[in-house]
Amino acid sequence: MFYSAMTEQQLKETYANLQDDFEACKAKNLKLDMSRGKPAKNQIDLVSDILSVLTNPEDCIVDGVDTRNYGELAGIRCAREYWADILDCKASQVFLGGSASLNLMFDVISRAYSHGLLHSERPWCKEEVVKFLCPSPGYDRHFRITEFFGAELITVPMTDEGPDMDLVEELVKDPAVKGIWCVPKYSNPDGIIYSQKTVERFAALKPAATDFAIMWDNAYCIHEFEGEYVPFPDIISLCEKAGNPDMVYEFASTSKITFAGGGISAMAASEANIQYFSKLFFVNTISFDKVNQLRHVMYLKDKAHTIEIMKRHATVMAPKFRTVLDLLEREVAHCGFARWNSPKGGYFISLFTMKGTAKRALELCKEAGVVMTGAGATYPYGVDPDDSNIRIAPSLPPVADLQKAMEVFCICLKLAAVEKLLKQ
Amino acid sequence: MFYSAMTEQQLKETYANLQDDFEACKAKNLKLDMSRGKPAKNQIDLVSDILSVLTNPEDCIVDGVDTRNYGELAGIRCAREYWADILDCKASQVFLGGSASLNLMFDVISRAYSHGLLHSERPWCKEEVVKFLCPSPGYDRHFRITEFFGAELITVPMTDEGPDMDLVEELVKDPAVKGIWCVPKYSNPDGIIYSQKTVERFAALKPAATDFAIMWDNAYCIHEFEGEYVPFPDIISLCEKAGNPDMVYEFASTSKITFAGGGISAMAASEANIQYFSKLFFVNTISFDKVNQLRHVMYLKDKAHTIEIMKRHATVMAPKFRTVLDLLEREVAHCGFARWNSPKGGYFISLFTMKGTAKRALELCKEAGVVMTGAGATYPYGVDPDDSNIRIAPSLPPVADLQKAMEVFCICLKLAAVEKLLKQ
Repeated sequence: MFYSAMTEQQLKETYANLQDDFEACKAKNLKLDMSRGKPAKNQIDLVSDILSVLTNPEDCIVDGVDTRNYGELAGIRCAREYWADILDCKASQVFLGGSASLNLMFDVISRAYSHGLLHSERPWCKEEVVKFLCPSPGYDRHFRITEFFGAELITVPMTDEGPDMDLVEELVKDPAVKGIWCVPKYSNPDGIIYSQKTVERFAALKPAATDFAIMWDNAYCIHEFEGEYVPFPDIISLCEKAGNPDMVYEFASTSKITFAGGGISAMAASEANIQYFSKLFFVNTISFDKVNQLRHVMYLKDKAHTIEIMKRHATVMAPKFRTVLDLLEREVAHCGFARWNSPKGGYFISLFTMKGTAKRALELCKEAGVVMTGAGATYPYGVDPDDSNIRIAPSLPPVADLQKAMEVFCICLKLAAVEKLLKQ
Repeated sequence: MFYSAMTEQQLKETYANLQDDFEACKAKNLKLDMSRGKPAKNQIDLVSDILSVLTNPEDCIVDGVDTRNYGELAGIRCAREYWADILDCKASQVFLGGSASLNLMFDVISRAYSHGLLHSERPWCKEEVVKFLCPSPGYDRHFRITEFFGAELITVPMTDEGPDMDLVEELVKDPAVKGIWCVPKYSNPDGIIYSQKTVERFAALKPAATDFAIMWDNAYCIHEFEGEYVPFPDIISLCEKAGNPDMVYEFASTSKITFAGGGISAMAASEANIQYFSKLFFVNTISFDKVNQLRHVMYLKDKAHTIEIMKRHATVMAPKFRTVLDLLEREVAHCGFARWNSPKGGYFISLFTMKGTAKRALELCKEAGVVMTGAGATYPYGVDPDDSNIRIAPSLPPVADLQKAMEVFCICLKLAAVEKLLKQ
């Protein structure tokens, strides 16, 4: 029975039952963490052969470059080719960074702030106001980077096809709007794949700001855990065709392919942008870790082989997503106050619970020993105006723990919802 | 005979002979690069066992931390302890970065610019003017970082004991002077070890700026190639004792211990500074490459063992420095127009040739196929007011090539000097 259809008496009875369940949960003294999208140990074990692919010193020399010495700021050729293969762009459009693509994203915004982008009239720190579009729910770490540099964050709602493009097209008419954060495939947290139409509308944007930046974080570009690899359009060539060659900065890493925080990262952009940023980045470094670049290319080989490797991850990931979705279906669906997505890739399930109850539900979870990503984290400034969205990160705990955590979570969701209804 | 004592006739004869030598050099069609302090291949081969110390997945878990997953922003405990051992500070005062300490230095100045340091009244980008002290000759990449952020670079002469501290103490009375670049042991390029007195005067500085930053790049902290390891005072505890606990940021890396650009880097500073920067750096990254941190600790073990490993490097480095010094002694000393240092560690020999002839000498070198670090590079804005200092980087070429390159170099030095004397 939908909670919304219950009489006060029914709600009170439901509340009492849920309270009993909740106390029983607390008595279990659980300590479970579902707060971040961390891969599980057995997943990482499946790709740990990478540790031994590069042990011979002579193998470190590739295309005449000794990866153990300084040089090749943009990355070794085979690594640039690897990412070009993965992202369907050209090797000349690839710049490799350190172990985290987040750092590359930060550095792009940081240089925009201190020096400006390729087509900036002035550094962003000299602008009266800089506004940045944040499709939400979205990734808290993206939003925080632009917040860190004083940008005003503007929420753009998500649709089933990606960000609300009617609104985006309208908002970019404001010259103070300098860019937008995107996770175009298996968006964090909604798990949405932007439609072809959405991607094309992005490429064809006509922003008032000459230095408008699409921050295209293709974090889950080959991260299917169910079904086959889903091809995805190359935003760089689309932007070029639309007459906006320098408008997009694409990012990717192997953090969820090999080692989280111990992989390699890449930025892809127009040749002009790669040239511009190579000049800027040469001030902060001589070259990034090319030994690790080579190690990764030797292990991952190419896109086809990497997709095979991703299937190993899928064997661990799929049952976890299944567990979460089954429990939500069984325990929450019939109550009618929540909806969620069922992604086939990425790292998250995005759940919308009864408005005004997300924070309370997660407070209760915490009380019962289950830590989730904080409510609101998926919105600019950490504030969900509806207090409704919750990001579920099923990857880290083993299935048995996940099951326990989700049971607690479902009880807490319902408890918070009934509490709210009783107060009305 | 000293050139300065020669008659015009003698100079003309000398010039003619040198011209013949120079033409003979050109005829050899050399292509030799002595421009940067890059380690040689056989040096790197001597430490390439590091590639195979960490191949077992289970070894990746240390102190309960899986280095293959996210977490531990400041670095894994054993790596922080390793650097504390090397630098004689506390593990809690260490923050590990990516593969380049230069990037950490850049990030400190970059955050000072955008957000300010721990004791800044405002971000440096909001200051009317920021001045930065540059002991010269010094490291071009240091100077460039502060130039990049719009600081006014002020040259401070070097003495045999380090920077001219009388002048430094005077200059820091200006509140616009926000910091100083230092390479305290085997300074780049002079190879000077700052005296105990100099280090103490640094620690006791009373700058007008509350956020004055000593950028202490201890790049060659254990990089002796002749004689035993030379102990060096810990600037962090000295600053603390002098009542300036948060004034210094020390940097080091394994770029010249293991792989250049493929090693691990560290910043050491007061706990308060490490806490402050951990908060700032968490915006740009979740964690750095801990697998590589662990790999390094497993291979390098501790300070004593690392010093043993440095002796391997010394077997390659020492003969190269010997070659350079012998040739200078044999070919140039008797001419009386140049002086140079004879360091026992570090990566460079700093040579002062006849004023007004450094640029010309290196132009001639280039014509004969020998590339050296550009004249002036060791001074702020790349301009040596005396046009005299040349940084010699003997590490990369094999001894036989080095010999050839130095023969050319000596001829060019002399040719430029005689040219100059003839024009007077």
